[in-house]
Amino acid sequence: MTEPGGAPHELCINTMRMLAADAVQAANSGHPGLPLGAAPTCYVLWTRFMRHNPSNPLWPNRDRFILSAGHGSALLYAILHLTGYDISLEDLQRFRQWGSKTPGHPEYHPAIGVEATTGPLGQGFCMGVGMAVAERFLATRFNRPGFRLVDHYTYEIVSDGDLMEGISYEAASLAGRLKLGKLIYLYDDNKISIEGETKITFTEDVEARFKACEWHVQRVGDGNDVRAIEQAISRARQESEKPSLIIIRTHIGFGSPKQDSASAHGEPLGLDALKATKENFCWTLEPHFFVPEEAPCEFRLAIDRGQRLEAEWRSLLEEYRKAYPAEAEEFERVINHRLPADWDADIPVFRVSDGPIATRVASGKALNAIAKRVSVMLGGSADLAPSTKTLISGSEDQSPEHPDGRNLRFGVREHAMGALVNGMALHGGVIPYGATFLIFSDYMRPALRLAALMDAPSIFVFTHDSIGVGEDGPTHQPIEHLASLRAMPNMILFRPADANETAAAWRVAVAKGKPICFALSRQNLPVLDPDRYPGVVEGAMKGAYVLSDVEGTPDLLIIATGSEVALALAAQEKLLADKGIKARVVSMPSWELFKEQPEEYRNQVLPPDVKARLAVEAGSSLGWCQWTGSQGDVIGIDRFGASAPGPEVMKRFGFTVENVVARAAALVGK
Amino acid sequence: MTEPGGAPHELCINTMRMLAADAVQAANSGHPGLPLGAAPTCYVLWTRFMRHNPSNPLWPNRDRFILSAGHGSALLYAILHLTGYDISLEDLQRFRQWGSKTPGHPEYHPAIGVEATTGPLGQGFCMGVGMAVAERFLATRFNRPGFRLVDHYTYEIVSDGDLMEGISYEAASLAGRLKLGKLIYLYDDNKISIEGETKITFTEDVEARFKACEWHVQRVGDGNDVRAIEQAISRARQESEKPSLIIIRTHIGFGSPKQDSASAHGEPLGLDALKATKENFCWTLEPHFFVPEEAPCEFRLAIDRGQRLEAEWRSLLEEYRKAYPAEAEEFERVINHRLPADWDADIPVFRVSDGPIATRVASGKALNAIAKRVSVMLGGSADLAPSTKTLISGSEDQSPEHPDGRNLRFGVREHAMGALVNGMALHGGVIPYGATFLIFSDYMRPALRLAALMDAPSIFVFTHDSIGVGEDGPTHQPIEHLASLRAMPNMILFRPADANETAAAWRVAVAKGKPICFALSRQNLPVLDPDRYPGVVEGAMKGAYVLSDVEGTPDLLIIATGSEVALALAAQEKLLADKGIKARVVSMPSWELFKEQPEEYRNQVLPPDVKARLAVEAGSSLGWCQWTGSQGDVIGIDRFGASAPGPEVMKRFGFTVENVVARAAALVGK
Repeated sequence: MTEPGGAPHELCINTMRMLAADAVQAANSGHPGLPLGAAPTCYVLWTRFMRHNPSNPLWPNRDRFILSAGHGSALLYAILHLTGYDISLEDLQRFRQWGSKTPGHPEYHPAIGVEATTGPLGQGFCMGVGMAVAERFLATRFNRPGFRLVDHYTYEIVSDGDLMEGISYEAASLAGRLKLGKLIYLYDDNKISIEGETKITFTEDVEARFKACEWHVQRVGDGNDVRAIEQAISRARQESEKPSLIIIRTHIGFGSPKQDSASAHGEPLGLDALKATKENFCWTLEPHFFVPEEAPCEFRLAIDRGQRLEAEWRSLLEEYRKAYPAEAEEFERVINHRLPADWDADIPVFRVSDGPIATRVASGKALNAIAKRVSVMLGGSADLAPSTKTLISGSEDQSPEHPDGRNLRFGVREHAMGALVNGMALHGGVIPYGATFLIFSDYMRPALRLAALMDAPSIFVFTHDSIGVGEDGPTHQPIEHLASLRAMPNMILFRPADANETAAAWRVAVAKGKPICFALSRQNLPVLDPDRYPGVVEGAMKGAYVLSDVEGTPDLLIIATGSEVALALAAQEKLLADKGIKARVVSMPSWELFKEQPEEYRNQVLPPDVKARLAVEAGSSLGWCQWTGSQGDVIGIDRFGASAPGPEVMKRFGFTVENVVARAAALVGK
Repeated sequence: MTEPGGAPHELCINTMRMLAADAVQAANSGHPGLPLGAAPTCYVLWTRFMRHNPSNPLWPNRDRFILSAGHGSALLYAILHLTGYDISLEDLQRFRQWGSKTPGHPEYHPAIGVEATTGPLGQGFCMGVGMAVAERFLATRFNRPGFRLVDHYTYEIVSDGDLMEGISYEAASLAGRLKLGKLIYLYDDNKISIEGETKITFTEDVEARFKACEWHVQRVGDGNDVRAIEQAISRARQESEKPSLIIIRTHIGFGSPKQDSASAHGEPLGLDALKATKENFCWTLEPHFFVPEEAPCEFRLAIDRGQRLEAEWRSLLEEYRKAYPAEAEEFERVINHRLPADWDADIPVFRVSDGPIATRVASGKALNAIAKRVSVMLGGSADLAPSTKTLISGSEDQSPEHPDGRNLRFGVREHAMGALVNGMALHGGVIPYGATFLIFSDYMRPALRLAALMDAPSIFVFTHDSIGVGEDGPTHQPIEHLASLRAMPNMILFRPADANETAAAWRVAVAKGKPICFALSRQNLPVLDPDRYPGVVEGAMKGAYVLSDVEGTPDLLIIATGSEVALALAAQEKLLADKGIKARVVSMPSWELFKEQPEEYRNQVLPPDVKARLAVEAGSSLGWCQWTGSQGDVIGIDRFGASAPGPEVMKRFGFTVENVVARAAALVGK
């Protein structure tokens, strides 16, 4: 059967297969099995359905595609190359080499068509759900009769491994509940995983499971049956009330001597097996990376088609601009990631009389002040909204009835929440956040890491950040979490001392558009009096600042974060009054932001000559020595917590004025 | 309807309810809703079915009960108190107070009947699966015709939140695949979670979902219908080929003014509402913690019954000992957590000629050497067994056909693997391990934390531990993982430098019986020549040791771990030869083990006077300053990795002899 471009689809599909297999072989590393088996699926999707513009990979109304089975990256690069994205044959030849555009697993790089970083299984599955949520939210907000500005699908190829991961179940449950009708997942059902046949461990009825979550499910019995795949995708597109799963029975390593065996998964075929495969497909043996003349025509139709699609869309946008000028202005602003001019105008300045107030509560106020003006801010909590204070007042719950509802009810699904927020962030046009207790950031750690890897503007609000949690006990009291988040590259951690530092946290988060986590208190904290301590917001945004200084050279520095800053201030007073010790108090809400400051500023805040330094933070001491030095000291916690009222736990763990004073005095030898 | 003890079951159930509500009120903190709603379920299970001995909570053949919905802890403490465990009324009155036996969420304390720490949702659900695996494994190994030594059920009460968590899906899929017929979970289906009715987010067909995973599912329409609950549990016990879920429709906060509302979940009722509740149940208003005379008789039947059950079992064991003396000896040894005398006799001593060999490969050999003699060692990998080298040769896969198979095929379910290993460890009688790539330890972090909290003898084998992973790229290259595991209290991290240090790691793991993670290399590493470097194993077991010393006082110390130790040795040679710098090389496979050593030993290894210290480790630098001091330096990695061949990545990230030499020389000012 030939295609509009004239090339038989078999030829096109095998071009994809062989390019992928050649790439893996050239690298002598990688996963040839999925590309060989899933090439027809990918081909049908990309040539018959995907609405995208290789000349402008950032066209806002493009369909989204994620290869959740990220180990199949060679297949993705092959289709991107063939359809005209900025991935050359040389790039394919440099698969898995230093500095190439074609790393071993896809890395978020929308300019070349890679919509998300995948590799860790299940993440892509869930990010796609986030993209679909964002699409529908924006469509509801901006589309008008006759103007379907926002109208695109989210497609994925997912694997056995993706479906075994717990996060995929969470995501499927949410997607079904939300009735995301423009989500279409193609399940590469090859019945093989690394350890062998999936039936040794994965025997659940996948169709029944997805139907239980209100998905639309179809089966394609032969993964090489182009027509059947095409029909299934068509039907899935027509199903507008449910997300769709198409279970496609494929054969890993199809056409190679290793077909249907685990060894086809994650090792290069080897020169002999590669040759045998090419012979099997009647393929040209040399050169490698051979692309038959007829094939590009077929694939490259995407270029013209894409330019036409975008041109039509731009005309539509023009008309829309005339008919709905205000909406058009807002639309253009949000899809270009720009904030309204006065987005932060309502962020409160807290007075002492507004406190004492927990930073989680102040966060809720700051969030709402921003959300009032930034209409595309949306998010939610993993069933802890009353505790995390993250409901946007005056907005509906996100639901099929209210697809523009800004309050997402993630349920007790922290991991899905994390990846969904990432998906929304990558989609663009919205500013998403997710919230839970800091202790449960553990449940979503792989999603946090991916946010950092992708540099996604994902905002994570973590409350109940220390032993201050109290009676819920050690299972709920973070200890190692601050340290473990600081160890993660490209993740900003911000632990504000009071309501105004919390407002600063939100300013940073929204303005900077980088991956960020807040650590907020459960318990009430005094407001740092703006009259007595000017520059709190400005200082906090620099990551650390001198909160309360002394006359002349300090005898020591007390560096504190979050709930311990008030303690440091009280100790400062007592040290001076009782012992004549001059202690400068530094508030250090964010190590990462501080490290970005010029050395001069950092040395002003922490003068290198002042060796006596005491850090005070209700969490793991790991890493504090970089600020306190070997002549310094740390009041931290390196054991698990305990169930008792919060103030008692704090006291018993040494977070008292007396103890801070004693440890400080010891440092200066008094 | 009265009970054998004479008390109407309503009275008994309300005793449980009121004790729990009073405990929460006295603490002015906690969760009264589940106890009020689930008390009948708990009552029926504990008085009609649970085979246990309050006089000996450690009786090996007891049924196991886990309250996976750990926030309902007051209910658990109430039933434990009433049935005669070592939890007094005073203990209940001190619910959630410092040092009490009744912390806010249950903490593993088998001596008082608490079989597992719960609170973080989904963990209990999965640990129970591990307990059932252990039960069946031991039953298959030790039972003989007429001698059902190992014969107990694993029961749980699970909540909506548990079922929303991804880990519960993974666990359910595994449990169904393994056909664990003695697993019975009672689902407290109250349709309320913290944010409101569960239908705002949790609309999946739970029954269909569990049936898709091959569970036996029943429904009880009225959570107060004692008879119906009893019948359902009976039927579940008869179902021997499938795990059972009983969906029990309850009402959160039953009988209180807050019934069926989210506010019943996690706040004390309040004095007025508590009073109204007691009036509703015709309960004595004062004193609080009132226990009607008739009630204890009913509950305390468990004491005599339990003593009888255990006495019968001990007789059986006596007979067994006569009929099967060898098996009996082994049985007694394993249930008392003792190792066979020569358990470590086959652990190889690696020679230089055995290398270069990756530490993951050496680990596989050590594991098999131990498994050969420790017949109750079992475990597996999350679909990475060929890579993690964790298959026990000569043993079957764990399956319904081979319930004594020692190779668990966890599938791509790291989180379930972690909690399942914990469950097996807590059950006792077996020595379990789980394995995956270090990067994917993130997926199971909450289970790792729980292992540490419970001090469970869980062994976690993490391989592919650094940028040495190479071409798979940054999604697969650990950076922050070593630091983040070190920040976790009570978790031993062991990163061996070579094959012999790896053997030491296994010695520690099996002998110490504490939570431990290994970080092992993907790539080959030279074997540290036992002739040239004596005391590698002994030194490694102390966490850090002088691997290669100098004459007299060292100019500097090079502290390295894992794959970087070889680099340190090469640099040591060059420093002496080229620059006359005398560098002592310290291998530091485990910070935690080193910190346990006497100060004298630690000062010997790291003399306080030697300030010039260079740490070398292919991972986050966070925390190294505690060993290197402010005059030291660290060659670490604080950014994400890159996709390229491993040796190239190592080189580009500064892990070369030249760079180590240069940084060392700079430290001593040459």
